Amino acid sequence: MKKHIEKIKILFEALPYIQKFYGKTVVIKYGGNAMVEDELKKSFARDIVLMKYIGINPVIVHGGGPQIKGMLARLGMQSKFVEGIRVTDADTMDVVEMVLGGKINKEIVGLINHFDGRAVGIGGKDGGLIKGKSVKIRGHVMGHAGDVEEINPEVIRSLEDSGFIPVIAPIGGDDGGVSYNINADLAAGHIAAALKAEKLILLSDIKGVMDKNKKLLPNLSVSEAKSLIKKKVATEGMVPKLNCCIEAVGNGVGSAHIIDGRVEHAVLLEVFTDAGIGTVIKQKKGK
Amino acid sequence: MKKHIEKIKILFEALPYIQKFYGKTVVIKYGGNAMVEDELKKSFARDIVLMKYIGINPVIVHGGGPQIKGMLARLGMQSKFVEGIRVTDADTMDVVEMVLGGKINKEIVGLINHFDGRAVGIGGKDGGLIKGKSVKIRGHVMGHAGDVEEINPEVIRSLEDSGFIPVIAPIGGDDGGVSYNINADLAAGHIAAALKAEKLILLSDIKGVMDKNKKLLPNLSVSEAKSLIKKKVATEGMVPKLNCCIEAVGNGVGSAHIIDGRVEHAVLLEVFTDAGIGTVIKQKKGK
Amino acid sequence: MKKHIEKIKILFEALPYIQKFYGKTVVIKYGGNAMVEDELKKSFARDIVLMKYIGINPVIVHGGGPQIKGMLARLGMQSKFVEGIRVTDADTMDVVEMVLGGKINKEIVGLINHFDGRAVGIGGKDGGLIKGKSVKIRGHVMGHAGDVEEINPEVIRSLEDSGFIPVIAPIGGDDGGVSYNINADLAAGHIAAALKAEKLILLSDIKGVMDKNKKLLPNLSVSEAKSLIKKKVATEGMVPKLNCCIEAVGNGVGSAHIIDGRVEHAVLLEVFTDAGIGTVIKQKKGK
Amino acid sequence: MKKHIEKIKILFEALPYIQKFYGKTVVIKYGGNAMVEDELKKSFARDIVLMKYIGINPVIVHGGGPQIKGMLARLGMQSKFVEGIRVTDADTMDVVEMVLGGKINKEIVGLINHFDGRAVGIGGKDGGLIKGKSVKIRGHVMGHAGDVEEINPEVIRSLEDSGFIPVIAPIGGDDGGVSYNINADLAAGHIAAALKAEKLILLSDIKGVMDKNKKLLPNLSVSEAKSLIKKKVATEGMVPKLNCCIEAVGNGVGSAHIIDGRVEHAVLLEVFTDAGIGTVIKQKKGK
Amino acid sequence: MKKHIEKIKILFEALPYIQKFYGKTVVIKYGGNAMVEDELKKSFARDIVLMKYIGINPVIVHGGGPQIKGMLARLGMQSKFVEGIRVTDADTMDVVEMVLGGKINKEIVGLINHFDGRAVGIGGKDGGLIKGKSVKIRGHVMGHAGDVEEINPEVIRSLEDSGFIPVIAPIGGDDGGVSYNINADLAAGHIAAALKAEKLILLSDIKGVMDKNKKLLPNLSVSEAKSLIKKKVATEGMVPKLNCCIEAVGNGVGSAHIIDGRVEHAVLLEVFTDAGIGTVIKQKKGK
Amino acid sequence: MKKHIEKIKILFEALPYIQKFYGKTVVIKYGGNAMVEDELKKSFARDIVLMKYIGINPVIVHGGGPQIKGMLARLGMQSKFVEGIRVTDADTMDVVEMVLGGKINKEIVGLINHFDGRAVGIGGKDGGLIKGKSVKIRGHVMGHAGDVEEINPEVIRSLEDSGFIPVIAPIGGDDGGVSYNINADLAAGHIAAALKAEKLILLSDIKGVMDKNKKLLPNLSVSEAKSLIKKKVATEGMVPKLNCCIEAVGNGVGSAHIIDGRVEHAVLLEVFTDAGIGTVIKQKKGK
Repeated sequence: MKKHIEKIKILFEALPYIQKFYGKTVVIKYGGNAMVEDELKKSFARDIVLMKYIGINPVIVHGGGPQIKGMLARLGMQSKFVEGIRVTDADTMDVVEMVLGGKINKEIVGLINHFDGRAVGIGGKDGGLIKGKSVKIRGHVMGHAGDVEEINPEVIRSLEDSGFIPVIAPIGGDDGGVSYNINADLAAGHIAAALKAEKLILLSDIKGVMDKNKKLLPNLSVSEAKSLIKKKVATEGMVPKLNCCIEAVGNGVGSAHIIDGRVEHAVLLEVFTDAGIGTVIKQKKGK
Repeated sequence: MKKHIEKIKILFEALPYIQKFYGKTVVIKYGGNAMVEDELKKSFARDIVLMKYIGINPVIVHGGGPQIKGMLARLGMQSKFVEGIRVTDADTMDVVEMVLGGKINKEIVGLINHFDGRAVGIGGKDGGLIKGKSVKIRGHVMGHAGDVEEINPEVIRSLEDSGFIPVIAPIGGDDGGVSYNINADLAAGHIAAALKAEKLILLSDIKGVMDKNKKLLPNLSVSEAKSLIKKKVATEGMVPKLNCCIEAVGNGVGSAHIIDGRVEHAVLLEVFTDAGIGTVIKQKKGK
Repeated sequence: MKKHIEKIKILFEALPYIQKFYGKTVVIKYGGNAMVEDELKKSFARDIVLMKYIGINPVIVHGGGPQIKGMLARLGMQSKFVEGIRVTDADTMDVVEMVLGGKINKEIVGLINHFDGRAVGIGGKDGGLIKGKSVKIRGHVMGHAGDVEEINPEVIRSLEDSGFIPVIAPIGGDDGGVSYNINADLAAGHIAAALKAEKLILLSDIKGVMDKNKKLLPNLSVSEAKSLIKKKVATEGMVPKLNCCIEAVGNGVGSAHIIDGRVEHAVLLEVFTDAGIGTVIKQKKGK
Repeated sequence: MKKHIEKIKILFEALPYIQKFYGKTVVIKYGGNAMVEDELKKSFARDIVLMKYIGINPVIVHGGGPQIKGMLARLGMQSKFVEGIRVTDADTMDVVEMVLGGKINKEIVGLINHFDGRAVGIGGKDGGLIKGKSVKIRGHVMGHAGDVEEINPEVIRSLEDSGFIPVIAPIGGDDGGVSYNINADLAAGHIAAALKAEKLILLSDIKGVMDKNKKLLPNLSVSEAKSLIKKKVATEGMVPKLNCCIEAVGNGVGSAHIIDGRVEHAVLLEVFTDAGIGTVIKQKKGK
Repeated sequence: MKKHIEKIKILFEALPYIQKFYGKTVVIKYGGNAMVEDELKKSFARDIVLMKYIGINPVIVHGGGPQIKGMLARLGMQSKFVEGIRVTDADTMDVVEMVLGGKINKEIVGLINHFDGRAVGIGGKDGGLIKGKSVKIRGHVMGHAGDVEEINPEVIRSLEDSGFIPVIAPIGGDDGGVSYNINADLAAGHIAAALKAEKLILLSDIKGVMDKNKKLLPNLSVSEAKSLIKKKVATEGMVPKLNCCIEAVGNGVGSAHIIDGRVEHAVLLEVFTDAGIGTVIKQKKGK
Repeated sequence: MKKHIEKIKILFEALPYIQKFYGKTVVIKYGGNAMVEDELKKSFARDIVLMKYIGINPVIVHGGGPQIKGMLARLGMQSKFVEGIRVTDADTMDVVEMVLGGKINKEIVGLINHFDGRAVGIGGKDGGLIKGKSVKIRGHVMGHAGDVEEINPEVIRSLEDSGFIPVIAPIGGDDGGVSYNINADLAAGHIAAALKAEKLILLSDIKGVMDKNKKLLPNLSVSEAKSLIKKKVATEGMVPKLNCCIEAVGNGVGSAHIIDGRVEHAVLLEVFTDAGIGTVIKQKKGK
């Protein structure tokens, strides 16, 4: 009995957070190890189901780089990268769509449903959710590597109204029927802004944003984040993540978080603890 | 002007059919050449968009055999068949999910949206739409080749309520998270029954059901259809299609149609002409 | 079969127009020969039913001058006109109400319903739809000849919400219970403005607006239309129609059209062809 | 002040009746002197408005015999009657439609709206409300004199949902577009049955049903009413009224009333006094 | 019969008032003799039920001074007053809550329900309706005597949406769980303002506001009311009532009334007569 | 961090229970020490708030015996009991209403709201929730001691639809306006049955139902419960509780629980642990 009471007391430590985020939308970019290791996958799916049941509306946007790389290798196809972005020709785009939309997206759906959530997986072309456009980098035409032109969140609203959890593959389309491979962080940021989400959470294989001494910065204002980029303290991989957070917060998202997906229950730790984990970026400093 | 008036008169020939099917649901199994040849693909997508705009609710269930075969070949994987059904091992199932759910499903969505429809592509695991189970054939364990255990159409209703056109990849899931490769005709039949659809249309590369003299039978009652199977007049490939139509009609679907997808605008020809095309199966004879 | 396919191709020529006007309101002033000749009557009713089924909301406002004249003659009553407007005494007003509201209105309803539309005929006094006031012309008291004081479109909205097609006799009423005989073009223009309609279509026995050489002007900006009146190029009968179009467009109606009701399917020809027929008046030039 | 208090006490005598009929539908056949004499017309209109404001849903079905007769006379047309029913040829039907639907219907609407009610006048062809059929009497073809084939009350529900008071001219239509002149009592009875009304009130120029000694029978069971007909106690004019009441009560109407429209506020007297006025017919005896 | 007709004519004298206040909210402070004498209690309850049935939404806020005093005396507890406000210690507050919320509130509910109304009694702590704060008067800490910090009218809206009549005991609460005894006039004024009520009616044992010659002032503008306070014409007891009316009218309430609850049917007399009773305060003069 | 992860793991132990009871109604009889001791009161209020936030709909019915006794003593009033039921005269009933409805009910509301719940306190007379009748025991007239005649749960549904937590004082009323003091267990049982609740929980100062050796019986079928009464194993105080559970389960309540309110978080322990606490009564044995 005593043990049970102890556990119930711990339940109550969650109550203020439940009340704080009740009815709010949280957009989560899901990627990295959290999408690969079995225990982390399960812990993530359970985090999402728990969030839904206690009144939070999670929206998941996932990546899939390693799996795409694996399939390209199996098919004997090679990729060229410019500034970290894959030059995506038509054949590669096909593989991207299959792996992201057919395999990974449905795996996540299956995992969430296995824990009695009710997920529905869609891509950015469904219901015109993500209108994409091609990206150019210093003159290089990047093929199907795309940017977000516009978000039309109606299909997300429709699924949420029926109690489903949307799981989104970041593939955009344009009016001409061309597909675009869009960076998952970027897509998540735009979707969070379109939904005026309470939180944008980027789940990656890093502890968060580091200062020049490699010490974690738990807490950044938008202007501090900009300064880190300007002063080149932020690493090459971190710069797009920071920019994505800066834009989301600038477009009405409550706070943006860069957290470590290698930690079990990373999402819930962020939502349900005062200190949070990783780095939070807000208009003004403070969790 | 005269030309314009001529055209408008033709519009009116469609009016009685528009009135007849207004607000009704039509489930279409999409496959074969109609899904391969460019002109047929476009004509199909435009048929669907037109249907939606004139008040019919189309639901599309697609196959993808040839494309799956192609990808398996590229990956150097081989398939075994038992009674026309692919023995689907786990690796093959992966490829099936990627090709059906990631590539074909989204291609159809893209095509429909290109003609200003508003399609949303999902698979049978999304929202628990198709609960699958494994199939056994004369003792052979068929791996992930599956049958339909139960249809939960809530996600379709939710999409239709928001004006979207559902496009469905026939992949089922069970509570344990296992995926099943389900024959598209079979899935379409079960979904039509769950939705109490007005029509089930199976689009294939055949003219319809033939009698023993290879003459088209435009019109069958359920008992005639059963008799064709019993008397082995129906060919091996036709038997499962006929069974699927018989079951659908027996479970509340208004009529079931086996039509030739190689004909341009085959779906509209079926819906918008008195004679229809191909073969219709109803409880009692008569279109 | 070929013939059928030809016809379906023609159906598709209508699709872009269906998409363009989907869910929009079109107010049509119905009068002249289109309301007299049997073939034209049928073609009009079918146009309306087709529009409704493909997602357009038609609202019909009808005139009835010749029929009123006929009944007055049968009853041995004479009319005086001032500037083309009937000086309507109380006895004449009675006849106007009977002919417009009792005979013509219900004939139109019957015709539409005969083609499986669901029309409901009302007059401007019903639900306080048209609040009228008396009109004075250069000192002449015009009796019950009236102008529009205010439109209260609630009864139209209520009928449309239930899927009915409103057919309106242009008879206004005031708080004192007095009835007013209102010009149908005028009533249609005010109703279109109150509904923020996409189109106002005035159906008459003229080809459209002519220039000084009696050549059709297919396309007018509001300022060009005003200039035609000012320069007295517009004929006496055309001036009130032009003014009505100018006012409607100035109050939020997308475009106003003066078209020839003697052409079969004139309404559909206007809606479903690029060139349209007759004359269109818009804020700025262009169809 | 005292006077005011007296008046308020009288208001309270109405309260139990208000509570009893709150939210209920009362179908009223309006005709006879109540539709002719100025004071009675006003008293009727105010009765209806008061009923609506205190939560009752009145539905009015009106006749118009004398006015039709007057117009026929003005036009030099003669009528033949068979068993009290006008043999209605096509020309006569035209006059009936004009007078009933154009003049009387809108007069009633105007009167009610004058007292700040919100009436909408329709005929039986509007929204397919009354499907009619022709009536034959002992071999005589009665022309457009019609009977009720079916009631489709959707248009009434739609108007009531928006707070309007429906005023109905009893003209039916069939699928072929033929109009029928239907007896107002008969139409009211069928409409009351279709609406499962609480009360059907037939307003006429008689005190109610009399016994053989010409004494008012305030209270009849259905079987007593039938017996009055069988024993030929009921007069020729009363028989169809009684039959109409018997049928209405037999089809779910709470009670049917034959009351004297020559009494000011006859409708309210019936609804708001214990004894009621005229004759009530119920399944079993008792008000 | 004549008598009945007379009565119905009187019903109609109420109709213009019914139309004027249809769907409007009227907040009534209920107190004084009207809450003590048996006949007045019944007359009040019936007034409220009648109002509800004819489409007005009454909201009742009640006092209870004498009953509280009585219970305090029975319990041998004494009260201190500062400027007419009870210095409410914790023990006294307990008694206030019991008497107001437990006894008086439910008596009113019972009375209304006895006359077939559907009342629901709540206090200001229910649903956070009245957020209170403590009041200080010239340095004196007044204990639990409270002022209104904020009104959250959601619970009232919820009850009204289901057709209930809210009866409110004016006890506020703060976030710390402290209860406040709030003057009923004050609470009624704030609730009326939060609901943007059509009328605020203060029912007391006075005829209304008097001028310096003790003559009733039936009609005051806000600036006249302010002037009466400034010039000390208003008595000590009247000043807070006037202030409460001035504030309510200043915050969007249509009119505020100080009327004599010792008159039977005082509330209905105010609502249903032109002259009204007592004193009305409006932004600008005139009933 | 480790500590946080530990805590989140405990959160997940609650997930299956959250899923099981999501959207279900749980009626709780609140009384005894849980309503007296400060820590227990807080733990109860927090249990209720947590339940509401995770999707369960709690409905609270409270007693108040000791507080009533205290007030009666303070007022020098004495009570007579017959078979454990207070013979409630009119004066006593007054005190009961004040203490239950005015003090205890609002204290519970205040406590729940203090923890950011949104409670609304009502009594059984509000909205006609509990229709009561007087109880007779072996010829003794019990005064206002009452039984439940009928439950009308509309007011509970209305509050729940707006997200409020209903807190109910078990005081019934009849049409004549008489109040009844109803045993809280009894009221809770009837309310649970009327709501078809998932659970009825009786919170008391006992461990549960004991066998003849005073050992807790964790698990009873309805027939076993009946047998305990018949064989007089159940103590006098337990018999009415058991009867109340038997009736509730017999009328559609999922399970009934008699649990020990002296244990902190007793309600959550019952809902969120497999074994539960106290005794559960179900149609057939098993938790």
